[in-house]
Amino acid sequence: MAEESIKLDLKEVKLDLQKAIVECSQRGLLHSTKWLSELNFALQEVKLESSNAFTQLDNDDETEHYLLAKSYFDLKEYDRCAHFTEFCQVPRTRFLHLYSRYLSGEKKKIEDMTDITTPPDPTQNASLRELGSELMRDHLARKLDGYALYLYGVVLKRLELLGEAAEVLVEAAHKEPMHWGSWLELATLITDRTKLNSLVLPDHWMKHFFLGHAFLEQQLNDDALDIYFALQQQGFEKSTYLIAQTAIAFHNRRDVDTAITTFRRLQKCDPFRLDNLDTYSNLLYVRELRVELARLAHEACEIDKYRVETCCVVVFLQATTTA
Amino acid sequence: MAEESIKLDLKEVKLDLQKAIVECSQRGLLHSTKWLSELNFALQEVKLESSNAFTQLDNDDETEHYLLAKSYFDLKEYDRCAHFTEFCQVPRTRFLHLYSRYLSGEKKKIEDMTDITTPPDPTQNASLRELGSELMRDHLARKLDGYALYLYGVVLKRLELLGEAAEVLVEAAHKEPMHWGSWLELATLITDRTKLNSLVLPDHWMKHFFLGHAFLEQQLNDDALDIYFALQQQGFEKSTYLIAQTAIAFHNRRDVDTAITTFRRLQKCDPFRLDNLDTYSNLLYVRELRVELARLAHEACEIDKYRVETCCVVVFLQATTTA
Repeated sequence: MAEESIKLDLKEVKLDLQKAIVECSQRGLLHSTKWLSELNFALQEVKLESSNAFTQLDNDDETEHYLLAKSYFDLKEYDRCAHFTEFCQVPRTRFLHLYSRYLSGEKKKIEDMTDITTPPDPTQNASLRELGSELMRDHLARKLDGYALYLYGVVLKRLELLGEAAEVLVEAAHKEPMHWGSWLELATLITDRTKLNSLVLPDHWMKHFFLGHAFLEQQLNDDALDIYFALQQQGFEKSTYLIAQTAIAFHNRRDVDTAITTFRRLQKCDPFRLDNLDTYSNLLYVRELRVELARLAHEACEIDKYRVETCCVVVFLQATTTA
Repeated sequence: MAEESIKLDLKEVKLDLQKAIVECSQRGLLHSTKWLSELNFALQEVKLESSNAFTQLDNDDETEHYLLAKSYFDLKEYDRCAHFTEFCQVPRTRFLHLYSRYLSGEKKKIEDMTDITTPPDPTQNASLRELGSELMRDHLARKLDGYALYLYGVVLKRLELLGEAAEVLVEAAHKEPMHWGSWLELATLITDRTKLNSLVLPDHWMKHFFLGHAFLEQQLNDDALDIYFALQQQGFEKSTYLIAQTAIAFHNRRDVDTAITTFRRLQKCDPFRLDNLDTYSNLLYVRELRVELARLAHEACEIDKYRVETCCVVVFLQATTTA
């Protein structure tokens, strides 16, 4: 699959990206919105004709419900969001209803874990199963759009129905190929190259980003790099995401110096980025670049001392001191 | 001032609300967005002619920067958001730049407070002062729009320049009367009725909501109720915000039974609401309504056991047990 040549129509790609940013952000899908916005930013030089390429919000019968629910969602009042959208039918509002129910359950599960005085709440899994069977019913009735399918896939995965989850996530990618979250979740369910080859994926440019990611996860680093270099040549040379992915591929191949050079370039474009600093600091530790590691640790602590990546950098720095 | 009769054109009001919801949500002003969305929801029956009353995002030269910055902002990566908007000039993006710098400082201050092993970082106030002088420079050059003026007012207040803060917030309310945040911050700076009467406020329907709130804060409960009843009669009878405010006014007047009845009505419309449950549970405690208090405590814990309001309910419940 990696052999296919990649050709991109950058104007079309950019229009796809901008539409998807709006769609994902309306649904509170923050990480997909961020990923798409980073790609869109890499295409700054690609100018779209229309001065107003996208309208963000159509008024429908549920606009008041949607706006209210979204404002609660953004403040993490998930139960309130779910309550006010209970009878909504417009897909966007319906998604917010289902997603807020899911996130409410997840939030409570995490709270119960940190709160050792309370035993785990058995109803939490009950509410997940209830959400799952509601989604199954709508799936059978073919009422789920690409975003709802994504959520269904995520719920199936949580319920440890992994085969079903993968099938549903492939369906989600077909219906809404621009939603990066579906691809990412799908990648976690791929166990080997045979499984990857057996998937029937949509013929969409996003497939290449997925394959690159899936190859990297399977440690098929050369295949991943082939795709990433092709995407860079096709117009994404400024993408920080692709720089990071190639750096990880070099790291996996034990090509330490190229990996470090690539991470340095990434740091220069995006100095307040913490994503992937765990890998970067591991490389600096391996090469015993203590001064650079100390600077990185200082910067990361300044940006956000409670992020996992920051902890990794600090641990590697301490390891050089004690070594 | 409370004597003026209030007349509202509900179609105009609703159009104002929907425009402002978009504006505030684009700027990450979550609490104003929520407040406006609640009012908008109360006007469900008011139908606007156009099927597409508002466009959310115009493409400009900074669209890529804006979208990227907003996606970082929503994930609370404030430093990264500020970095990518450093040279942006479009007011919306410029606001995101300034606001993320402010929030980054606030976030770090809170983290340093909870982290007792680190002494308070003296640069934190330096960055607030730097932000303040940048805003002052732009203010003198008349380059601040209503939202940036709000932020300037907030920064002045943090720097304990209260008189200047009040002046700037009045200016913000004139320029952007729909932004509830400016009014709320202004209300915190009003010490008495004389000060309130001396303010030159914009002749806009939002002024009534502000006056109601300011009267209530000054314990001028009858004046507040006059305004709130008038607003309810003018079309906002379904507003949960107004129900809550009247309940608080009854509570302040020691009209315990009416206050409890009003809070019960609120609970029925908005059962997953935690806002103002502190006042409600105090009333139930005063009337020794232990069963209702226990039910409320149980529900609040189910919704979010770490919210301040939930803690209040639990404390009042425990007080009835030990009394």
